[in-house]
Amino acid sequence: MSASTYSPGLEGIVAGQTGISTVGKEHVGLTYRGYSINDLAEMSTFEEVAHLLLHGHLPNQEELESFRTRLITRRCLPPGMKSILEQLPAAAHPMDVLRTGCSALGTMEPETGDNDQKQVAERLLACFPSMLLYWHHYHTCRERITVRSAEQSLAGHLLHLLLRQPPTDLQRRAMDVSLILYAEHEFNASTFSARVTASTLSDFYGAVTSAIGTLRGPLHGGANEEAMRLISRYATPEEAESAVRAMLAAGEKIMGFGHRVYKKQLDPRSPIIQQWAQRLAEASGDMTLYRISERIERLVREEKGLYPNLDFYSAPAYHLCGIPTPMFTPVFVFARIAGWSAHIIEQRLGNRIFRPVADYTGPEPREYLPLEQRP
Amino acid sequence: MSASTYSPGLEGIVAGQTGISTVGKEHVGLTYRGYSINDLAEMSTFEEVAHLLLHGHLPNQEELESFRTRLITRRCLPPGMKSILEQLPAAAHPMDVLRTGCSALGTMEPETGDNDQKQVAERLLACFPSMLLYWHHYHTCRERITVRSAEQSLAGHLLHLLLRQPPTDLQRRAMDVSLILYAEHEFNASTFSARVTASTLSDFYGAVTSAIGTLRGPLHGGANEEAMRLISRYATPEEAESAVRAMLAAGEKIMGFGHRVYKKQLDPRSPIIQQWAQRLAEASGDMTLYRISERIERLVREEKGLYPNLDFYSAPAYHLCGIPTPMFTPVFVFARIAGWSAHIIEQRLGNRIFRPVADYTGPEPREYLPLEQRP
Repeated sequence: MSASTYSPGLEGIVAGQTGISTVGKEHVGLTYRGYSINDLAEMSTFEEVAHLLLHGHLPNQEELESFRTRLITRRCLPPGMKSILEQLPAAAHPMDVLRTGCSALGTMEPETGDNDQKQVAERLLACFPSMLLYWHHYHTCRERITVRSAEQSLAGHLLHLLLRQPPTDLQRRAMDVSLILYAEHEFNASTFSARVTASTLSDFYGAVTSAIGTLRGPLHGGANEEAMRLISRYATPEEAESAVRAMLAAGEKIMGFGHRVYKKQLDPRSPIIQQWAQRLAEASGDMTLYRISERIERLVREEKGLYPNLDFYSAPAYHLCGIPTPMFTPVFVFARIAGWSAHIIEQRLGNRIFRPVADYTGPEPREYLPLEQRP
Repeated sequence: MSASTYSPGLEGIVAGQTGISTVGKEHVGLTYRGYSINDLAEMSTFEEVAHLLLHGHLPNQEELESFRTRLITRRCLPPGMKSILEQLPAAAHPMDVLRTGCSALGTMEPETGDNDQKQVAERLLACFPSMLLYWHHYHTCRERITVRSAEQSLAGHLLHLLLRQPPTDLQRRAMDVSLILYAEHEFNASTFSARVTASTLSDFYGAVTSAIGTLRGPLHGGANEEAMRLISRYATPEEAESAVRAMLAAGEKIMGFGHRVYKKQLDPRSPIIQQWAQRLAEASGDMTLYRISERIERLVREEKGLYPNLDFYSAPAYHLCGIPTPMFTPVFVFARIAGWSAHIIEQRLGNRIFRPVADYTGPEPREYLPLEQRP
């Protein structure tokens, strides 16, 4: 292939086949294994969606019951993991805590014939909130929390562990829908990195560790955190409007808008999470943050023709669920582990190692100068 | 792009530009920043090559002295890291120890304005052997070793820490050359995964953690370990020949042969490491392992037309340096961190997030069935 056909960031390049989801496909939009994201967000639960992604079909009542039970029993952490989490500094980036915890769990409960890939996937799905929140409470209040709760859903459980009390039903369902929306999104950078790692036939934990490290970056998972920092900077919608107008005039990028695949189309997940952000704001009795978000959204749409993506309205929604901003991206991990796992399993089924080539732009062959002759 | 142009594993697809190395380029072969691998392996040291890759040029005497000193002072491990290494089980995969250690170091010494990417790269280059061998000796003899030695080179230091005594000059130089040969190889899977992770503007440690997890797989870094398991299975060259002939007849893959980029060309690194394996065997007074390797190599070449790659003769060479087989891939990490670091730095200079697309092969859009109606 000549340099003229080189596509930076592999934009538009088909890097593999998938049966897991469609993103912005004509007349189809966003689907998980054929089911539209709108139906799933309206009628399903995150556990059903995780089962759909991991096991290939929506569970019947018996399967769902069994899946829920497995996830509940796998929330615990081995003692060695707790010691490691205690050694990670209080000031650590929460994504680095999950990245390290995932990698370390791979040494303690490795993938084997007796601990196969789907068990590993369910284990990670079940225990990521435990890892993060054990570390969090240990360092913020020197307490070694129990990572059990009476909550039946992952959404309820993670909010309960975080808040140290049961969330409201509205928070529980808003979080559940958010996890559905974040669960899967085709060949985004983190999923792609999981597939690249899996393609050398490395272990499951290694592939997930790569994905966490990749999601961490501000161009990917960090976008909802950036959106929160933006909207929380202003006291009123008017103040937000004039400040963001100035940012746009200065050519600054506003995080949470636009998407390589959706381009100037609407991200179908955005109106869903916006609706939940609005409901949470109404229930809280304070509409300020929501109104500020709305005003910024309208302005960016009018001025730049850019639509918000999932990350934008997730910011006020998460904030109203009581989630501290540095934990927004970890919550993304709690959801996306379902999609990553499906992709790792799929990659292994028809594997070919990822080994692209590079266009060489460096120096011509040159003669070696011995040390003593170098300038 | 239509499915007809889809290239599994991105084979032949240009995924980016690089000025760091050429692999099998016509009339040029393998070069690091323009210098041929033959010149570097013959006349240079690993520290000079690491400086070339990281800092862009071969160091003069003063720069080399300063670089060596920095690497020596950065061999130590923080107390929290030692505690974590002690928590990782004795039976852990050594690559998972490095993956976890690298990720954890990112929480303890994060990349900041005061700890920039080149400092992080030098730190990892200096301390990876310490991490692995602290963990190794703690679990094999319950000893908390000091990770200092009087050795000036990384090659000498890692052998000294492993063997608990100074290596021979021949072992020291053989290892030094091996590190040069393993230091860099363009867009191989692990380097590519480091660039994918770096492309979201994630941290340096995250990109390296992905690379370690990717290198771990048997289709990539694990090949020299597989070669060792093969050659150590036989008592004589004759026994090896008849067994490998039977394996070839049964269509089994022999690890350490062929290469996606070199195809049926010779990997220029192979004759170099072969020569060092021969010297080490002669010095040991026992040529058996070397003769077995030679016999297998000739057979595979004659029967399959496949040439050995770097991994094949690295197996007997490493064995003769006293390295246990499960540590072969970690030694690859000690060398390749130089190349990975150069690629992460380069990726950041002209970054575009990696977000390819997928060819959808899944179910058509389908209607959502409520839980109670599912079969």
